[in-house]
Amino acid sequence: MREVAVIGVGLTSFGELWTKSLREIWVESALAALDDAGVDKVDHITIGCMSSGLFTGQEHLASLLAGELGMAGTPAGRVESACASGGLAFRAGLAEVASGLADMVLVTGVEKMTDVDGADATYALGTAADQEWEGFHGITFPGLYAMLAQMHMQRYGTTIEQLAAVAVKNHANGMLNPHAQYHLKVDVDTVLRSTLVADPLHLLDCSPVTDGAAALVLASVDTAKKLGKPIIKVTGSGMATDTISLAARSDLTSLEAVRLAGERAYAMAGKKPADIDLVEVHDCFTIAEIMATEALGFFKLGDGGPAVERGDTAIGGTIPVNPSGGLKAKGHPVGATGVAQIVEVTTQLRGEAGDRQVKGAKTGMAQNMGGSGGSSIVHILEVE
Amino acid sequence: MREVAVIGVGLTSFGELWTKSLREIWVESALAALDDAGVDKVDHITIGCMSSGLFTGQEHLASLLAGELGMAGTPAGRVESACASGGLAFRAGLAEVASGLADMVLVTGVEKMTDVDGADATYALGTAADQEWEGFHGITFPGLYAMLAQMHMQRYGTTIEQLAAVAVKNHANGMLNPHAQYHLKVDVDTVLRSTLVADPLHLLDCSPVTDGAAALVLASVDTAKKLGKPIIKVTGSGMATDTISLAARSDLTSLEAVRLAGERAYAMAGKKPADIDLVEVHDCFTIAEIMATEALGFFKLGDGGPAVERGDTAIGGTIPVNPSGGLKAKGHPVGATGVAQIVEVTTQLRGEAGDRQVKGAKTGMAQNMGGSGGSSIVHILEVE
Repeated sequence: MREVAVIGVGLTSFGELWTKSLREIWVESALAALDDAGVDKVDHITIGCMSSGLFTGQEHLASLLAGELGMAGTPAGRVESACASGGLAFRAGLAEVASGLADMVLVTGVEKMTDVDGADATYALGTAADQEWEGFHGITFPGLYAMLAQMHMQRYGTTIEQLAAVAVKNHANGMLNPHAQYHLKVDVDTVLRSTLVADPLHLLDCSPVTDGAAALVLASVDTAKKLGKPIIKVTGSGMATDTISLAARSDLTSLEAVRLAGERAYAMAGKKPADIDLVEVHDCFTIAEIMATEALGFFKLGDGGPAVERGDTAIGGTIPVNPSGGLKAKGHPVGATGVAQIVEVTTQLRGEAGDRQVKGAKTGMAQNMGGSGGSSIVHILEVE
Repeated sequence: MREVAVIGVGLTSFGELWTKSLREIWVESALAALDDAGVDKVDHITIGCMSSGLFTGQEHLASLLAGELGMAGTPAGRVESACASGGLAFRAGLAEVASGLADMVLVTGVEKMTDVDGADATYALGTAADQEWEGFHGITFPGLYAMLAQMHMQRYGTTIEQLAAVAVKNHANGMLNPHAQYHLKVDVDTVLRSTLVADPLHLLDCSPVTDGAAALVLASVDTAKKLGKPIIKVTGSGMATDTISLAARSDLTSLEAVRLAGERAYAMAGKKPADIDLVEVHDCFTIAEIMATEALGFFKLGDGGPAVERGDTAIGGTIPVNPSGGLKAKGHPVGATGVAQIVEVTTQLRGEAGDRQVKGAKTGMAQNMGGSGGSSIVHILEVE
């Protein structure tokens, strides 16, 4: 397998971008990544997007966006794994370069979520759950994650204050990220006094509805060296699925797809949790961050909540989690999230993260997840 | 790059499968392919599907379908490039095996199109066009392809009888395919007397709305040999895009994405048009088959229509086109089509196509296309 490196990153501001269309924000991030890499063409484009059909009435993004970028002709494809679509776009680009089918790939993610009203956005997001056994009966994602949280609290004694501490940390990190949707400092009390959405999850336990796009340029390490770019190598890639419906799982207190994907990424990279200097995890809800850090082996089962309260996951802690602000504060344009996570990891490994820099970071991880843990994709990147 | 082979194929019957759900038809085709390959697990699953969100209210097929197959845990991902989604699923599986990220991949395509009414199906299919510059103004795909046909007729003198001859041939081939949606013999007069949908395209110039699923097992050639399976090697893979809207193209009388994708596949395989023994092309409308055979170099521009009338593209002709019956008669479950094309090519190269067998076929091609030619993916397969 050929060695692959990230040589360029680009990101739009995340937020409610009502004056811009999907194609505009995608092109903005793509041009930023190409500019950062110092290249003006690629062999292949991958696009992570969960549901442009339901959110904007537009499929066939491969053709639309290659053309909008002025690159009609270039091979392009869209991938989808609900909110893990961005991670899948990265994996697809990795496979193209690692195989030699392509030498340079523009890996992108995008979602334009605010062109429909709230009920339609909730419906679109709900298509990531099992529609026959979950969605059609009325449950939506806050409800599904609330069930995971309830089980975790009962099994391990996780508290609502620990959940809130995730939001407090990620909002604090988001204050340091100019691309973040929210620059809003919150404390535990603010979170617990926010509207109860699905017990025990309050409004501030939930990631927001967001417009945004993210992009990366991947190249073979040989090509990257010829271009003289900083080499951030992709050393681990792991994917896994789990049953889509919670009802079909034997245990709701751990995320099996995340554990498996992490295990596969660690094995490929020859790394263990202690080797990771920072991790971006998929905190679509605060409980998801706690469960992800456990599934990835940073803490034993049940210790994810206390770890946040101890400050272990803060920038400067033993394993900084979501220095970008995470989905919680940076925002969660679902198809873009997995790519944006790797933009952050790359930025950190380059030492270019400014006030939120994790000092001396040499090895980083990104964990992206679809649905209520029905799919997960984990990548490990390293400074050469 | 590691050598890759198709070692198993599976297909549902194509048609209006009102009593079966998306997950049921997908599992049926997947089990058939696994059974044909003689394996009971894979390292990775790819799923081509254009718009399960709009057709069935269900995204996140990777998680749903891996679980339904009893393979929760296995890495899986969905890809989309409108009606070229199946071809993209094959490319994604090829990249996984060629890179060594996976050793055996289940490549699948599926679309359940008849769970919505006709207007909603037309809307869903329309999302493959540029919604801002085409769809929102009222044009649908028969109209877009009718414009291509009008231009081709004006430039090259292509006739409505030549268009009809494509339908006549493909329906004749479909009579020989037990999986085909239609077993209906038509003649030129039947086609020309069918309802005019968008001048010059009649109802029988158009592919139907179809439910169906198709699956393949891909493996490294080394693994295939150990399993003792017949080796059908993937020797060429080419992809390309074009602008999504017709208005942005400089010439409407040729399909540039098809030409480029074909050129790339030929180059990778070291083949030329004269080396191909049979081809499955994307005949979503009869004009599309004529234009595809020209773009792939089987006939010079303008000779695609006369070639059909001469019988060159019949089984037994100089280059048999769509021996399966094509999208026209076999049916067009949009996400499944690209995979089903390669099922047919593999079946032909194995010499197992029964009454529609192209005698002595050693090298075959499949050409899949999205939208009005906004994306195309071409593969070349060869008997070892």
